[in-house]
Amino acid sequence: MSRDLLIRKAARLRELHRGPKILILLNVWDVASARLIESMGLPAVATSSAAVANSLGYADGERISRGEMLAVVRRISAAVNVPVTADMEGGYCNLPEGMAETAHELLEAGAVGLNLEDSDKERKLVDLSLQKEKLRALKEAGRAEGVDLVLNARTDPYLLKDAGDTRRFEDAVRRARAYRDAGADCIFVPGLSDAETIRRVLDESPGPLNVLAGRGGLAVPELERLGVARLSLGSEPWRAALAAFRHIAREVLDHGTYHSMTDNTFTYDEMQQLLRGGSSG
Amino acid sequence: MSRDLLIRKAARLRELHRGPKILILLNVWDVASARLIESMGLPAVATSSAAVANSLGYADGERISRGEMLAVVRRISAAVNVPVTADMEGGYCNLPEGMAETAHELLEAGAVGLNLEDSDKERKLVDLSLQKEKLRALKEAGRAEGVDLVLNARTDPYLLKDAGDTRRFEDAVRRARAYRDAGADCIFVPGLSDAETIRRVLDESPGPLNVLAGRGGLAVPELERLGVARLSLGSEPWRAALAAFRHIAREVLDHGTYHSMTDNTFTYDEMQQLLRGGSSG
Repeated sequence: MSRDLLIRKAARLRELHRGPKILILLNVWDVASARLIESMGLPAVATSSAAVANSLGYADGERISRGEMLAVVRRISAAVNVPVTADMEGGYCNLPEGMAETAHELLEAGAVGLNLEDSDKERKLVDLSLQKEKLRALKEAGRAEGVDLVLNARTDPYLLKDAGDTRRFEDAVRRARAYRDAGADCIFVPGLSDAETIRRVLDESPGPLNVLAGRGGLAVPELERLGVARLSLGSEPWRAALAAFRHIAREVLDHGTYHSMTDNTFTYDEMQQLLRGGSSG
Repeated sequence: MSRDLLIRKAARLRELHRGPKILILLNVWDVASARLIESMGLPAVATSSAAVANSLGYADGERISRGEMLAVVRRISAAVNVPVTADMEGGYCNLPEGMAETAHELLEAGAVGLNLEDSDKERKLVDLSLQKEKLRALKEAGRAEGVDLVLNARTDPYLLKDAGDTRRFEDAVRRARAYRDAGADCIFVPGLSDAETIRRVLDESPGPLNVLAGRGGLAVPELERLGVARLSLGSEPWRAALAAFRHIAREVLDHGTYHSMTDNTFTYDEMQQLLRGGSSG
């Protein structure tokens, strides 16, 4: 992809964080899901690292290599016109020095934004100053290539089981401020669910704020009213799609019929049409 | 995969065509769907070439390369213990001479069976004697490596729009006989749907017979009663799974809620567990 196009796409993705509408990201895992989301009018495509890794057979948690993850991102970026932001877990390297290559490879793959998370494989928060250095290094590496990458800094206190609410809140706010200082464009705090906590995080941290939707979470209009800038669905839509396949399989095996397959589907021709609209097909 | 294991898996897959139970294949497209099917107790895993190609962004019809198709087959074979049979479209080559490499690469990828279809990109039946040569070449190439590949010869008269019923029936039966003579282990006739036609094809051709299930098709117990040996679902389960994702996306966009995502899903932990059971995770 040309540098000019990457620059325009990064600017467009950044702009989508500035409201007034919340940016809804229905995270994808392959080209077909990405093409579908674009065809439904979504203004950007975001990958879910867990969904990509899981679909390829890896458990979540950076068991997939950076190269395999980026191969999927590359296919997706080549197939859609909207900006692509990639979930890059912890950046596939513990060192700030590794981030230049991650940024370079990401741009080579045609993505203009990324998530970088701050919990490690042992589900502990990584050192705050290390994480800031990684964020700074990503930002600088993108700018060195002329593209202001849209950095979505994920902070995970609300996903960790061994902290109380006060500690979680304090960690999330401290890290949100620090990551924004380090150049992050958006702060992603998965695990936030109630309106009161979201309001407090928004009051105490610089934003824009990205939350993860799901079971028991607030509906989109309420998140928008609160001032949440970006909404992710994570890997659950992918898991639910695979659960639909399980349901179809169970019906065939238990009852010998195909209703759950035929009741809501794409026809063969609709699918080929969806893919011919893309650039890989 | 060791040659001994390939030999045992090929024998097991062949055995599954000999009844008394119909072999049900819920065609998969990635490692997660393959692991799921194995975890549900299915005795074999079959890929759908359309689903694999579509998920990677290619329209159906041998637009994907053999290497890309086999890369998916390889991941799947490494992740399940049951035999894997791969949908290989037209074999990714028009010449019998190309089949030795296709067979070799397929075995390298860990699969022990394959589909070879007989309609070309213009949706015409390919020359009968050419197709027989391709089937013979595949069989010989497998045996030269010590493995008796399970050849599922697909014949497509019932998918072509420009033939009448008599012509379709005659073509299907003639080709079923010819392909069996050429070494095919099973004959796949997609497009057969009513009991009377299936019964006539079974009467006039050597079998075992593979049919494709779907909308308007006979339920599994009736297919089993008729004597159908093998049932495929093709790419429709995959398309229906993607349609479930579309339904989730529509609910989020139109109503701002997540019920269709959370009502039937895998939890994050269930999914990681499913994948840790495999060998890639």
